Amino acid sequence: MSITDNYQTAGSWLDCSGPMSDVVISSRIRLARNVVGFRFYAHSDDAERSDLQEYVHQRLMKTSLKDDLHYLDMGSTPKLERQVLAERHVISQQLASDGPCRAVAVSQDESLALMINEEDHLRVQVLASGQQLAEEYDRINRVDSILEKEIDFAFSPEFGYLTACPTNVGTGLRVSAMLHLPALKMTSQMEKVFSAAKAMKLAVRGLYGEGSEPIGDLYQFSNQTTLGKSEKQIVEEMVNLAIEPIVKYERTARQHLIEQRCAALDDKIFRALGLLRNARMISSEESLYMLSFARLGVHLGRIKDVTLDRINMLMQLTRPAHLQHLQQRELEPEERDIVRAEFIRKTLN
Amino acid sequence: MSITDNYQTAGSWLDCSGPMSDVVISSRIRLARNVVGFRFYAHSDDAERSDLQEYVHQRLMKTSLKDDLHYLDMGSTPKLERQVLAERHVISQQLASDGPCRAVAVSQDESLALMINEEDHLRVQVLASGQQLAEEYDRINRVDSILEKEIDFAFSPEFGYLTACPTNVGTGLRVSAMLHLPALKMTSQMEKVFSAAKAMKLAVRGLYGEGSEPIGDLYQFSNQTTLGKSEKQIVEEMVNLAIEPIVKYERTARQHLIEQRCAALDDKIFRALGLLRNARMISSEESLYMLSFARLGVHLGRIKDVTLDRINMLMQLTRPAHLQHLQQRELEPEERDIVRAEFIRKTLN
Repeated sequence: MSITDNYQTAGSWLDCSGPMSDVVISSRIRLARNVVGFRFYAHSDDAERSDLQEYVHQRLMKTSLKDDLHYLDMGSTPKLERQVLAERHVISQQLASDGPCRAVAVSQDESLALMINEEDHLRVQVLASGQQLAEEYDRINRVDSILEKEIDFAFSPEFGYLTACPTNVGTGLRVSAMLHLPALKMTSQMEKVFSAAKAMKLAVRGLYGEGSEPIGDLYQFSNQTTLGKSEKQIVEEMVNLAIEPIVKYERTARQHLIEQRCAALDDKIFRALGLLRNARMISSEESLYMLSFARLGVHLGRIKDVTLDRINMLMQLTRPAHLQHLQQRELEPEERDIVRAEFIRKTLN
Repeated sequence: MSITDNYQTAGSWLDCSGPMSDVVISSRIRLARNVVGFRFYAHSDDAERSDLQEYVHQRLMKTSLKDDLHYLDMGSTPKLERQVLAERHVISQQLASDGPCRAVAVSQDESLALMINEEDHLRVQVLASGQQLAEEYDRINRVDSILEKEIDFAFSPEFGYLTACPTNVGTGLRVSAMLHLPALKMTSQMEKVFSAAKAMKLAVRGLYGEGSEPIGDLYQFSNQTTLGKSEKQIVEEMVNLAIEPIVKYERTARQHLIEQRCAALDDKIFRALGLLRNARMISSEESLYMLSFARLGVHLGRIKDVTLDRINMLMQLTRPAHLQHLQQRELEPEERDIVRAEFIRKTLN
């Protein structure tokens, strides 16, 4: 199987199979690692970067992970496909950009990705459906141990793992969860959530992380600093003090809406579905909003004639790069909106 | 038959049977008349108003019009029913308000209404589907002649017919047409239309005339002064220099949209239909907007599974008073939005 076969469906992190997936879309953990004997990416020349890429690639192929990994050299991957990978959260926007000597090794189910020559020499990412931060932390720890047998990572007894950006120094750990909070939004409680997140030094971002605005009531919560806390502590605090309480608030708000403002809730849900089934032009942003409400409607049992599978598939395949990949050509933005609307209509009618 | 039987259906002026009714919803002409020997309504006491009401009523019943007229004393007509009549354009908002000694005599098809003790002693109104201003002018002239045989109207050889408000002095004629101009709106040409109307001293108002904002891309065009021009001239100028050119512009704009921006046009039309078929709460204003776009879609042959009849019926029956009359009780605004959405859904699905 090729990794491109995946591009016709949603990423597995979107499939709602994980715990609490009525609210938690996905859990993601990544580690930043750098290799002893090589300068940081930003301070290297292309020859050194190329050496690093080859070195890490060779070493990866010696680990027990190798059988499940597809290795993609970004230099020989078309730009549109790189954008598809970014939309699938397999690679970061930075890795998708035109920088030299970048690569990714990704597992067939896309739940594990190892980015080479991103900001750091190596970024290891695990991604899973629903709230699985503790499980994914154990998993990435195992991956890290496997890698450490083959690669000598830069580590200081005083500071911990050394990274290109000081905010990652220490554990090099970034823990994040993507939450869908339409009911907290409808009941005007998002400001409270933002304040609580700020007090806990968590960053709140949009679907595509750093620099992206929240759309479709989808919010990515992540830890900001990694120095001075144990990895376990970071993960536990994130789960117990942030994610699970927010899930509880969102569920309470949904229940409140069903009991007290059912018509207003149904109105949002069915307008969204009506719009998706009827629009002739729809932007990427609007479709994500409408699909999010439809997703809520399916989860709450208000919408009965659409499956979650369809919604998830559309959430992924209506992103600009996926849409163009599906059409096998580049599309102008207006044309994209027409093709997107047609695709959604056909899928939902 | 009672006039209340009509309240279950749209007014005949909405039925699209008249010429140019793809753009011209309705034509309306009214005359302002006052009776010799009685002071203007605003300067009378209730005894005199009551005498005038009785006098006009008796005289009307001597004319050849009497067999087709229903006489409704506003004092004994419930407020909700008066609002229904105003929504049907049978009476003005002023006549629907709580002032004393008001009445209306209305023909079974509602195309002729004679309001007693409005701003003037008598307001005669004819209303028809599509562009029929010349025909309706002939008709109101015949009605005026019939009335003049029985009632002595205040007339000055110098000024013409005397009226309570100076803007009506002269012919006492107000000529108006309700136009549906979604394509001119979509192509950002309404400002040009407003300027042209202003240059011709035409007022542009909303669905409910004076003081109402245009909604649903429905605009009422009417002459503002009646002094110094013959009646025939007023009507001819209105038709030849305003209504017919605007109809032509709107049709050209629609053709342009179909040929050049079909996806954008269909998008507006089908989003409107999708919203009408799915919303669980909808305001009076939004439903009028959406119904207007659906009407456009039916006229242009884009929507094939909905008849104009249904749209017209909904345009009338979703107004607040009609909706409550249909439910046979007063409804709070939020409840009204829910009932309205339900009614629209049932009618269109």
